[in-house]
Amino acid sequence: MEQDQLVTNTEIRVRFNECDPLQIVWHGNYLKYFEDGREDFCIKNGISYLDAKEQGYSTPIVKSVCEHKLPLKYGDIFIVETTYIPTIAVKLVFRYRVFCNGKLVCTGETVQVFLDEVGKLALIYPQFILDWKKEIGLE
Amino acid sequence: MEQDQLVTNTEIRVRFNECDPLQIVWHGNYLKYFEDGREDFCIKNGISYLDAKEQGYSTPIVKSVCEHKLPLKYGDIFIVETTYIPTIAVKLVFRYRVFCNGKLVCTGETVQVFLDEVGKLALIYPQFILDWKKEIGLE
Amino acid sequence: MEQDQLVTNTEIRVRFNECDPLQIVWHGNYLKYFEDGREDFCIKNGISYLDAKEQGYSTPIVKSVCEHKLPLKYGDIFIVETTYIPTIAVKLVFRYRVFCNGKLVCTGETVQVFLDEVGKLALIYPQFILDWKKEIGLE
Amino acid sequence: MEQDQLVTNTEIRVRFNECDPLQIVWHGNYLKYFEDGREDFCIKNGISYLDAKEQGYSTPIVKSVCEHKLPLKYGDIFIVETTYIPTIAVKLVFRYRVFCNGKLVCTGETVQVFLDEVGKLALIYPQFILDWKKEIGLE
Repeated sequence: MEQDQLVTNTEIRVRFNECDPLQIVWHGNYLKYFEDGREDFCIKNGISYLDAKEQGYSTPIVKSVCEHKLPLKYGDIFIVETTYIPTIAVKLVFRYRVFCNGKLVCTGETVQVFLDEVGKLALIYPQFILDWKKEIGLE
Repeated sequence: MEQDQLVTNTEIRVRFNECDPLQIVWHGNYLKYFEDGREDFCIKNGISYLDAKEQGYSTPIVKSVCEHKLPLKYGDIFIVETTYIPTIAVKLVFRYRVFCNGKLVCTGETVQVFLDEVGKLALIYPQFILDWKKEIGLE
Repeated sequence: MEQDQLVTNTEIRVRFNECDPLQIVWHGNYLKYFEDGREDFCIKNGISYLDAKEQGYSTPIVKSVCEHKLPLKYGDIFIVETTYIPTIAVKLVFRYRVFCNGKLVCTGETVQVFLDEVGKLALIYPQFILDWKKEIGLE
Repeated sequence: MEQDQLVTNTEIRVRFNECDPLQIVWHGNYLKYFEDGREDFCIKNGISYLDAKEQGYSTPIVKSVCEHKLPLKYGDIFIVETTYIPTIAVKLVFRYRVFCNGKLVCTGETVQVFLDEVGKLALIYPQFILDWKKEIGLE
C-alpha cells in the first residue's frame, strides 16, 4: 500500500467573506475547506465528482462532523490534510485535520455514499472505485 | 394596469453568518437578499424558476448592480422592495430597494434573459411570460 | 420544567442559491439552517448572540454534526426543530431535526462554549445563563 | 507610471459548492471571485484590508456591478484580471475581467470608500494610499 497516496495537503488562505463578526472563520465554512481538501484528493486520484458522474454515479455527503480547537482569522494561511479512511462499507470516508502555523486548528470527517443514475443507493462499490483501490494497493 | 402587482415587499432578518469582520452584512450577500425578494415576487406571480423550468426555460442573471447607502448589522430586520420594470427587450428587469427602520439602505438591479432547453437565447418572450404580462395588464 | 420552552420550530423555504449541481441543498448549508433554528430559539429565550455580547460573552461553536437521511430540493418548505439539551458541562448543546412533508430529512447537533471578553474559556456558567435556566425550571 | 503594478491576474478553480442547479456558478459568487482578485492585488500592493486597518481605516464596498457573458461550470479554471482605476474622487475603484480558456466570461467593477476609526467618511486620501500612489508613479 502506498500510504502517501491516501493523504493530500491543500494550502488555503482565509478570505474576508469567510469571517464573521467575532473576527474568526464562521464555523460552517470549514465544510467548504474540507470540500477543497477532498476535491484536491479526489482530482489527484481520479475519483472526483466529475469522474463519478462520467461513470453514472453521484456521491452525496450523508454525514459530516467538525471539531474546533482554535479559531482561524482573516488572512491566515492554513493546510487541510485530507486522509482517505478505508472501510468495508460501500462508502467514501475522509478525515480532515486543519493546521495553521504548526498548530491543530480543527478536525473533521465526512461520509459519502454512491447513488446510481436513478438515485438508487449502490450496495457494492462502483467499478471505478474498485479499480482505484486496487491501483493504490488497498485490495 | 394593476400597479401593486408589480411590487413585492419581503421582510428578512440579518443572519449572523451573513456579517463580516466589520460587523456589517458582507456586500455580496445583498445579491442573496435581492434573490429572496425576486423569488417572492416571481412565486406570487407564477413566473418563478420552477414555473420557467416547467415551460422549458431557464432565466440566468446577465447583470447585477448594487449600491450601498447604509450598512445592515446582525439582527436588523429589513424590507426588500422588488419592482418589475417593463422593457421591450426580451429580458426580466427587477429593481430593488432595501429599507431598514424607514431608511434606504441599498438599491440594486438585476437583468435576466431566457434560455430554452438547449441553452439558446430566446429572441421573443416565452408564452408564459406573455400570458402573465397580459394578466397584469402590461400588454 | 416547562418542556415546550426547550424546543423551537422554525419554518424555512429552500433558496435557489443553497442548491448544488445535484439539484439538492449543498450539505454545508444545513449548518445555516441549524443556525436559523438556534437563533430563533435563543432570541425567544433571551440568550442570543447579542444578549451574550451585552453580558460580555461570546459563544463560539466547538463542534457540529450533521447526518442526512433525505435531500431537500429548491422550493421545499421545511421545519428545523431545535432542542436545548441540558448538560452539566459549561456548554450550550442543541440538537436539530429537519422535517419536510412529515419526513425526517436530517439530524444534527452543535456544541458551544462561553468565552469572556478577553477570550478566556468560562469554567462556570455566566449569570445570564443561570438566570435563564432557573426561569425555565432547569435548576 | 509602472502599468503592470496596476493589474493583477489571479487563477481560481470553480468549486462544487459555488455552482447552482443550472450547473453553473451562481451569479452572486462572482463577487467572491472579484474579492479574491482584489485581495490579491491589495496584498501585493500593501493596501489590503489588514494594512488599512493598521492605519485606522476600513474600506467598505459602496457599489458593485457584474455583467455576465458566458457561464462558468464546476471544475473550470479561470483568471480574474483586477485593474486599479485611478480616480480623483477619494475612492478605490477596481475593474475586473474574468477569462476562461481565453474567452471573456464576465466583467465587473467595485467602488470602495475610506472610513476612519469612528466610521466617518474620509474626504481626503489616507496617507498610506497617497504613499502607495506615489510609489507606483500615480501622483
